[in-house]
Amino acid sequence: MVEDASPQLREVMTALAPYAGRAHVVGLTGPPGVGKSTSTSALVGALRARDLRVGVLAVDPSSPFSGGALLGDRIRMSDHALDPGVFIRSMASRGHLGGLSWSTPQAIRVLDAAGCDVVLVETVGVGQSEVEVAGLADTTVVLLAPGAGDGVQAAKAGILEIGDVYVVNKADRDGAEQVRRELRTMVGLSDRSEADWRPPVVLTVASSGQGVDDLVEAVQDHRAWLGESGRLEHRRARRARDEVEAIAVAALRARWEGVGGHADLDRLAGEVAAGELDPYTAADRLIG
Amino acid sequence: MVEDASPQLREVMTALAPYAGRAHVVGLTGPPGVGKSTSTSALVGALRARDLRVGVLAVDPSSPFSGGALLGDRIRMSDHALDPGVFIRSMASRGHLGGLSWSTPQAIRVLDAAGCDVVLVETVGVGQSEVEVAGLADTTVVLLAPGAGDGVQAAKAGILEIGDVYVVNKADRDGAEQVRRELRTMVGLSDRSEADWRPPVVLTVASSGQGVDDLVEAVQDHRAWLGESGRLEHRRARRARDEVEAIAVAALRARWEGVGGHADLDRLAGEVAAGELDPYTAADRLIG
Repeated sequence: MVEDASPQLREVMTALAPYAGRAHVVGLTGPPGVGKSTSTSALVGALRARDLRVGVLAVDPSSPFSGGALLGDRIRMSDHALDPGVFIRSMASRGHLGGLSWSTPQAIRVLDAAGCDVVLVETVGVGQSEVEVAGLADTTVVLLAPGAGDGVQAAKAGILEIGDVYVVNKADRDGAEQVRRELRTMVGLSDRSEADWRPPVVLTVASSGQGVDDLVEAVQDHRAWLGESGRLEHRRARRARDEVEAIAVAALRARWEGVGGHADLDRLAGEVAAGELDPYTAADRLIG
Repeated sequence: MVEDASPQLREVMTALAPYAGRAHVVGLTGPPGVGKSTSTSALVGALRARDLRVGVLAVDPSSPFSGGALLGDRIRMSDHALDPGVFIRSMASRGHLGGLSWSTPQAIRVLDAAGCDVVLVETVGVGQSEVEVAGLADTTVVLLAPGAGDGVQAAKAGILEIGDVYVVNKADRDGAEQVRRELRTMVGLSDRSEADWRPPVVLTVASSGQGVDDLVEAVQDHRAWLGESGRLEHRRARRARDEVEAIAVAALRARWEGVGGHADLDRLAGEVAAGELDPYTAADRLIG
């Protein structure tokens, strides 16, 4: 129902509201090739070993057209396919309803209310989506790996401002220690608003499980800090604000389409394209 | 004024409206490392040789935090820095006003009205931004290059549905011919809505200028086809529709903030975060 933006969704959400807000929402992001799926799978295993129920949302914001998002990831996650304590879903965010910002919070809410202790949101970490996943999560894990194109040099400055925990995966490869050093320096230099949390840098080899327990501990430490510092409430309120606003904007759009605004919009757009009208006046008339 | 979303912008846009709509808007996109900036620079040179005035907007949607977008690109474009027939601007789309969708069409309109014959919009081609640039342009040029990670295999399916012209850059390297063959096959198989335009695949070595005249011709051929087939009007009306809608949504947001909606939103978000209210009911109350 979330994926289809079903009209019945609002009833469901009303019913679910009292049950949500318990899960720890963990975002995972990083450039292609750093081993996000393997890390997610290893993290699921480590959380299950602690008897925690886990939901996984694999979001691919680069697939606006094709429905078959992250099929490879689904296959790689098949270790956990028969475990009733794990729910895995790939979502292609098609963008027409605002991409990640619209559907992902709803899906998180459903898994949360269904009793998941942890909801992992994995996203292909490129461009805008990195920042969006940080906005959705309680704890954002940024993955890097040694090797050309995946190191800190290649990472955009933005990535250094969103991570609550940094992971250097493939730590058995040459250069891992250097990536860690660079990360520590750059994270130390970056202009962070939450100065009292110092993001740790964890070394892992997700494929063998090495360091994954350290990662779980770092993630849980951050969750504890969020609670103690009062930041959790703040982050969740901000998330709810974005969610409510996205729904309100979608509702307003639906409303002006409902009163014939769609035809108006086409006519106004034609006048703007022809240079007869400026887009601001057109927008005023549309709202009017 | 566009970058600052200045309140005076609407006056300016009203005054500019009759002068816009003449420029050919060309989008350039593709994965990192394929030579987008070098290609843009080569394209500017070739267009200048035809005595056309050129505007260049370099948009980096992955820089929501840092203001110094694409500094490297500015430096590389310095060949054209003293040419009064070229205007170059790097824009970091910070996302808070809807990223590309809000500011870029306005900036295009300004360059268009200022008398640019061609406006090149170069974007870091990852994720959502690829699709957005296609929505903004009359002609979308998709660049690829031979080599690991840059080939067709690595390109997302989405890229094959947005290109009007494909470029295999760095064509002096091994594998260029194979990338061209794969591209032709995949473009032929993809489900294109505009079946009567067959996107050509052009080989270039942008750094030496090889093939750049072919690229200019392909881009101009597409422009001619758009005009003859009536598609230009259609694309521009769609673009104007998106632009008007983005401005209308921003205006509605500003309006509910103006009547104290911002405080309402904070309160409603708090209730949603606490599980006392579902986000749909909260959105209804906000609109109310």
